[in-house]
Amino acid sequence: MNWGSMDRYAKSLIKEAGQQIKHSFFIEIEINSKSSKNDLVTNIDREIEQFFIERIRRDFPDHRVMGEEGFGDDIQSLDGTIWFLDPIDGTMNFIHQKRNFAISLGIYVDGIGMLGYVYDVMNDDLYAAMKDEGAYLNDVRLPSLEPVSIEESIIGVNASWVAPNRYVDHEPIIELVNKCRGTRSYGSAALEMMHVASGRVNAYMSMRLSPWDVAGGMVIANEVGAISSTMAGEPLGMLGQETFIAANESIHSELLNEFIVLKK
Amino acid sequence: MNWGSMDRYAKSLIKEAGQQIKHSFFIEIEINSKSSKNDLVTNIDREIEQFFIERIRRDFPDHRVMGEEGFGDDIQSLDGTIWFLDPIDGTMNFIHQKRNFAISLGIYVDGIGMLGYVYDVMNDDLYAAMKDEGAYLNDVRLPSLEPVSIEESIIGVNASWVAPNRYVDHEPIIELVNKCRGTRSYGSAALEMMHVASGRVNAYMSMRLSPWDVAGGMVIANEVGAISSTMAGEPLGMLGQETFIAANESIHSELLNEFIVLKK
Repeated sequence: MNWGSMDRYAKSLIKEAGQQIKHSFFIEIEINSKSSKNDLVTNIDREIEQFFIERIRRDFPDHRVMGEEGFGDDIQSLDGTIWFLDPIDGTMNFIHQKRNFAISLGIYVDGIGMLGYVYDVMNDDLYAAMKDEGAYLNDVRLPSLEPVSIEESIIGVNASWVAPNRYVDHEPIIELVNKCRGTRSYGSAALEMMHVASGRVNAYMSMRLSPWDVAGGMVIANEVGAISSTMAGEPLGMLGQETFIAANESIHSELLNEFIVLKK
Repeated sequence: MNWGSMDRYAKSLIKEAGQQIKHSFFIEIEINSKSSKNDLVTNIDREIEQFFIERIRRDFPDHRVMGEEGFGDDIQSLDGTIWFLDPIDGTMNFIHQKRNFAISLGIYVDGIGMLGYVYDVMNDDLYAAMKDEGAYLNDVRLPSLEPVSIEESIIGVNASWVAPNRYVDHEPIIELVNKCRGTRSYGSAALEMMHVASGRVNAYMSMRLSPWDVAGGMVIANEVGAISSTMAGEPLGMLGQETFIAANESIHSELLNEFIVLKK
């Protein structure tokens, strides 16, 4: 595979999809809920995923697609080339804010992330990386992350995980909230991972993410030295929902060891 | 006073200060802490406040200034014209992110907010309002807020207030986190108030804000029908630190009555 050519193809597709999303603000957006009342989806999420899948199937018929809205393939193994796509990561922000959402795309071969993209549509900021070739925000290379301490860190953690929840003990999370410099929550996993990759936030954690939420971001985060794993410290399986943390390497282990107690 | 002229004067001053802040990224930023280790301040906060105060004293010698960095006047009453200034609201974001901070300015006469400004420097987004004349984001008028329910609301609340704290019972806050559609935390009170004023977030709350954090934003929020008050539901005193909530009118009372239990 010519990865330079594939990179240009993917970027072009993403920018075209971004234009379609921007244009959608002129038309009616239909809002529905999926697994729970706050798990939102719109006709635009569906249309954008279908746009990607049509193009990928036409131009790369032997590739498979795992997309959030389910129009892709039924992926049971990581063999071959898989496109992990979230057409709109942060759908709640898309609906309520008309900003702070992203197109997230990762292209993996036999489970290895080769290309990753997170496109902040409304800011026209494209984060992109090719394995071993560095990460970029538009035309600017993102520098490797500098070490930080927990005390000097900003942690991306939603209030849901500070409240009692079924995934982790919230008491150690409260200790973390009190120990770190500050917390933030933006409502888009892909963009929060880009905050980590660009050093604006030093760790991002969530108890329930899907492969399409993190696939693109992990390729990018990896290129600047951030560590991505499950909350158990293991590589993601990339076939279903998992716990997730992306962190500056200097605090990744400490966060998991000192502040994360998974429930059984 | 000619408020149209004053409005143009203030906007020009804010834009000039914004340029100075952007330019500061080319020079060394000195970081210090104030009341606590995470209460940060830089030489740029100080220089920008001094820039404002020199201009205001030269051009409006009978006006007084209450500024975050303490170069203004010792304000003990709200009589006359007072400029409430936060030269960089969200200093932690300024330092860590080089974005997501704002210049916040409110001009009040005898305690009444006449002009309000929140300038998102890096996005070049100026939120502005004149009392009874509507609120604007750049050249676009912000519409009056539509009613929402708690269940459909995004609430701006930092994890600090979901953890046990000395200001409010955190248990009802946890109930709120679970009841609302989602929570966000951006790290700048002024910008979070602008998210409320533009309907992107439906309420913003904090247990400890100063007059300069909210003075500009309150004038703007008021023009779109958002309600600002202390957590006890009273108007702000504007002379010291207070609890604070700015919310869509349709949920303001319910939030205070059902989810806020102040500690004595």
